[in-house]
Amino acid sequence: MSTETVPPSSAENLPSTATPATPGEDADERVETRAGYRQPVVDVGELTRFLDGKYAEVRSLVRSNLAENASILEEAETMSRDDFRDRVRDVVVEMASTGQTGMGFPEEYGGGGDIGASVAAFETLAYGDLSVLVKVGVQFGLFGGAILQLGTKGHHDAYLADLITGKLMGCFAMTETGHGSNVQALGTVATYDVATQEFVITTHGEEARKDYIGNAARHAQVAVVFAQLEVGGRSEGVHAFVVPIRDEGKPCDGVRIEDDGTKMGLNGVDNGRLWFDGVRVPRTALLNRFADVTPEGVYESEIENPNKRFFTMLGTLIQGRVCVGGAGINASKVALTIATRYAVRRRQFEASSDEHEELLLDYGMHQRRLFPLLARTYALHFAQQVVSGQLHDVLSGSQSSAGDDDHARRELESRAAGTKALGTWHATRTIQECREACGGAGYLSVNRFAALKADTDVFTTFEGDNTVLLQLVAKGLLTDYSSEFEDMDQFGMVRFVANLAVETVIEKTNVHKLLERVKDLLPGGDQWDQEAGLLDPDYQLAMLRFREEHMLAGVARRLKRGIDNKLNPGVVFSRVQDHVIGAARAHVERLVLEAFVDKVATLPGGDLKVALNLLCDLHALSTIEADRAWFMEHGRLTVTRSKAISREIGSLCRKIRPLAVDLVDAFDVPREMLRAPDLIGS
Amino acid sequence: MSTETVPPSSAENLPSTATPATPGEDADERVETRAGYRQPVVDVGELTRFLDGKYAEVRSLVRSNLAENASILEEAETMSRDDFRDRVRDVVVEMASTGQTGMGFPEEYGGGGDIGASVAAFETLAYGDLSVLVKVGVQFGLFGGAILQLGTKGHHDAYLADLITGKLMGCFAMTETGHGSNVQALGTVATYDVATQEFVITTHGEEARKDYIGNAARHAQVAVVFAQLEVGGRSEGVHAFVVPIRDEGKPCDGVRIEDDGTKMGLNGVDNGRLWFDGVRVPRTALLNRFADVTPEGVYESEIENPNKRFFTMLGTLIQGRVCVGGAGINASKVALTIATRYAVRRRQFEASSDEHEELLLDYGMHQRRLFPLLARTYALHFAQQVVSGQLHDVLSGSQSSAGDDDHARRELESRAAGTKALGTWHATRTIQECREACGGAGYLSVNRFAALKADTDVFTTFEGDNTVLLQLVAKGLLTDYSSEFEDMDQFGMVRFVANLAVETVIEKTNVHKLLERVKDLLPGGDQWDQEAGLLDPDYQLAMLRFREEHMLAGVARRLKRGIDNKLNPGVVFSRVQDHVIGAARAHVERLVLEAFVDKVATLPGGDLKVALNLLCDLHALSTIEADRAWFMEHGRLTVTRSKAISREIGSLCRKIRPLAVDLVDAFDVPREMLRAPDLIGS
Repeated sequence: MSTETVPPSSAENLPSTATPATPGEDADERVETRAGYRQPVVDVGELTRFLDGKYAEVRSLVRSNLAENASILEEAETMSRDDFRDRVRDVVVEMASTGQTGMGFPEEYGGGGDIGASVAAFETLAYGDLSVLVKVGVQFGLFGGAILQLGTKGHHDAYLADLITGKLMGCFAMTETGHGSNVQALGTVATYDVATQEFVITTHGEEARKDYIGNAARHAQVAVVFAQLEVGGRSEGVHAFVVPIRDEGKPCDGVRIEDDGTKMGLNGVDNGRLWFDGVRVPRTALLNRFADVTPEGVYESEIENPNKRFFTMLGTLIQGRVCVGGAGINASKVALTIATRYAVRRRQFEASSDEHEELLLDYGMHQRRLFPLLARTYALHFAQQVVSGQLHDVLSGSQSSAGDDDHARRELESRAAGTKALGTWHATRTIQECREACGGAGYLSVNRFAALKADTDVFTTFEGDNTVLLQLVAKGLLTDYSSEFEDMDQFGMVRFVANLAVETVIEKTNVHKLLERVKDLLPGGDQWDQEAGLLDPDYQLAMLRFREEHMLAGVARRLKRGIDNKLNPGVVFSRVQDHVIGAARAHVERLVLEAFVDKVATLPGGDLKVALNLLCDLHALSTIEADRAWFMEHGRLTVTRSKAISREIGSLCRKIRPLAVDLVDAFDVPREMLRAPDLIGS
Repeated sequence: MSTETVPPSSAENLPSTATPATPGEDADERVETRAGYRQPVVDVGELTRFLDGKYAEVRSLVRSNLAENASILEEAETMSRDDFRDRVRDVVVEMASTGQTGMGFPEEYGGGGDIGASVAAFETLAYGDLSVLVKVGVQFGLFGGAILQLGTKGHHDAYLADLITGKLMGCFAMTETGHGSNVQALGTVATYDVATQEFVITTHGEEARKDYIGNAARHAQVAVVFAQLEVGGRSEGVHAFVVPIRDEGKPCDGVRIEDDGTKMGLNGVDNGRLWFDGVRVPRTALLNRFADVTPEGVYESEIENPNKRFFTMLGTLIQGRVCVGGAGINASKVALTIATRYAVRRRQFEASSDEHEELLLDYGMHQRRLFPLLARTYALHFAQQVVSGQLHDVLSGSQSSAGDDDHARRELESRAAGTKALGTWHATRTIQECREACGGAGYLSVNRFAALKADTDVFTTFEGDNTVLLQLVAKGLLTDYSSEFEDMDQFGMVRFVANLAVETVIEKTNVHKLLERVKDLLPGGDQWDQEAGLLDPDYQLAMLRFREEHMLAGVARRLKRGIDNKLNPGVVFSRVQDHVIGAARAHVERLVLEAFVDKVATLPGGDLKVALNLLCDLHALSTIEADRAWFMEHGRLTVTRSKAISREIGSLCRKIRPLAVDLVDAFDVPREMLRAPDLIGS
């Protein structure tokens, strides 16, 4: 299936029979080919279908739409900023007309009525220009999502049909200069004026200006504005309001708009700042699904606890996080496709034959650079399928019982936060490694990495800063998403956990349920030190489960001890913070590997399964290797076994080498989206 | 000295007396303050003088020049590409008129006659717009350096005075599309025509077009072209020629010029492609310091061995590598200054007091993100001082004896390659971490990270791809820079090393000389497991020396075994490549730490020494921690001690916290170069 012109030379040099390993630490050169191993052949089309899954059709539609609008990749370099912003808007509206961007909205307003499909469509957009992707996210995900999820029928009737076609452009004005991830502390205020039955919206101080708001600087006509609601002199916390901000291109009265100016990337999106000076909107401008104000000025909500109310509102916006995670993962695929295809064309330095210099991809180091990232991209792809499936179920209300709702929703929030953090960090790292793997040529804009790097860079900090998101994950784990969970800030969490016995924390967490299995699989003592089993997914998962459980218990112990030692919660949290993040990361890593293992298990035996198992093993062992110091420190990895893992990784890379081009081709990034004619041929 | 407005809260919470450690693995919360430790006060001016060292004056000149031309940072965003390119050229010429860019040229042509000063000036330019820096590098370093180092008096008289003022603009046409780091394989050919006493220069095939050539697309009038010299039908290897390429803005006859187009960054530099179709230049166009062709067509060179000749020519261009490494290190300082200053203004989430949210820099995780990078920046700064000092000595011919010349020069090449690789990777990583530490605001161009990231990104692959450079370092170590060294490609090196006993390899290397000392300091057995000594630089260095020696021996053994097992050298090299790179990296890491330790040792006792020792310890222990798995695998770190190192790093971070602003202020990046008014105040 591979389209490279020269057969990989390294495979030829592998003896076909097994050779006994040299004993001791220096067994690296031992030939790893196992008796009975046969190199699988990958059917690229079959693999693409397997990856695309349930939403293959909508993904195809997006691929076609991208290819049709491919010129935008060049226009991003050549057009003036204003022209390019308008061009991006036009492409977004054009894509909207194909139904691609409205998948998540109810059919009665012209949407597709399928949230899973809308995530699939959005993710696939990441193969193309990312200003288009983000503009779609702002218009349909954030703005449209807020109207849909926070509003009620009146709002839906008033706005949905027009926003789905792009006739009405909107923005999502949550973030303020002084408050990024901490939304509860916003400074914008909406005061109810009972005399006129209006809300009066005002920006209090420069820290409270809305900032980095996509669509605000140029295109949005209305904004969903998040502000502290004040009714009758009493503060009711953050709520959302629909506020017209621009009329026939001019800011509305009392609204000041400023351009955020040039950004590192995504310059096709018009980010801006908003100030409100006594802007009046009618009482119905409050998006009132979860709370309302009567004409007489009585505040009403079915959710009594203000914190719970706030997090319920915020929770409905979770789709954005799921989408950004998926976008990061798919942007990685573009980078890997280019770098891998380049590495089977480019020759450098010494010849292994007399005729040619060596292909880049036949260098061991080059395989080590790219293949673990490729394997991890597959792993994250499947993890993303799990979280978007759960999102679909939760938002479509297809859970079994209402009682489980809260817990399921909070677990989903945690998984979405974790997958977003790992997926976007992965994008930053993968794109950088791929760009370096293409040498100086990777620096030219025509070769795609410039845009990929610059445009994806903000993914790690928007829709929730990754570090903050992992803290959210940890908080959920430590408190088992208890009812108190949403009330707690990090310091509250410190106090809460400190008041429990450590065993209780572990008892409460999911992790506990896995512990018995871990103990079976990871016996102490000498039984550890056997090479057999490195490629056993039960072993690999047990290792990640052990780490997760142990780290979580460690965090609980540390928090407890800090409080026992009379340190204030701020100091305790500050000192334990890296363990908190570590535990959260360990948890998400386990979920990601589980998703990969589970998915491969659904395949019938055959070459595809063999190939994906190679990737799954490589991902699992690379993950363990990356933290092997921790496993050694905690008695779960001997020196001998640690070295065996590194050797096995080398062996897996050599087996993946002949499959590499097929494995990236299966991502099916449209040729037009790759550009890079000098790198990968035209 | 600190200019932050609120005293750091974490320091207040540190009890002032020592508390005994809790035994066992969970001793993290133990209070680390040692009896007798007093928080030092940093005199920022004194530290700046210490950092600036011998070339404080020229660094000041550059800082002033940068501040005067500060508007260029904005112009990079607002001007059209062509206008900006011209503007950058104008700034470069203006800077040239202050003497700043000509420091490395002989005084008789208007230069400063001081190579060390020229490196210092160049490095400091990295505080500003990096297109200016790279344009300076191309014009004065590459083009001017080639004329100076490869040419003779005729060339100097003809070109130096004009190129020093910028009246004559030139480019350095070495890289070809098909050959990046492998210069010996270039495809451009220069044939001597005895009838006309001219060289005829021709591009053979698309792979041989000159590519990514700075100054080529718009400004250069002449190029130094590297081509295979053919005389009388015989190929004499790569030589350099001065070739006019542009006359009154038009390409010269036979020369085709194409723009490389938009790049990820550095768009103020006009990179382009060049093709030569039978371009004729006089015999005197050959830069003939190391080889010449007589009018009758006889090739002559004092260096008989063609490989040695080639590497001697290339070696004279080493200054570029030293300069790029320094630029990467200094660009990191800009990023760290902004991120650190932001982190003492920005508050986020929970309050440790009732009045304020917590300052970012008081979060343990934030300290862990930034301070090891800060410490490493200091370490690399001092390592860079060592290599630029050696460069000055070697190029100024101030070594003791001619016999040591070759060896000293190859050691310098190795150190320059290694420092460049580590310094530029450090820049990529540091700038990324700092940008993420500034959240979404870090994404706005006005806050500097956009340009820093985009412009420095190519540093890791230009002036030698970092991976290739580390292979060069390893080759030098494995062959002790022997006379055969330059003849060997990587596969030759494999064969060479395989033919030696492993002991011989170790014997030959410098590392051997350190082994006895390592053995004294790192006894086996239980003596290891003592916390005392973690902060002893002898211990820290012994660890890095042990790793270096062990890795190098491991590489030698693996190469030998591969050949003994009858694998071909290509396969052997491919499989051992990551060990080769690892050994080189370990070597350079050791040099970097030595430079830091040695430099701090020159300070008299006092607060400055105390403060720099904190940084030096943090750098050393972070370096060991990052590779602690390896140290455990090789019996040089117990689990207990490994955990103790992580704890000590946390403790060092807390001690550095109150000094952090002073430590970045001492870099003395001009305020105008930081921009970022919203992040750090105006």
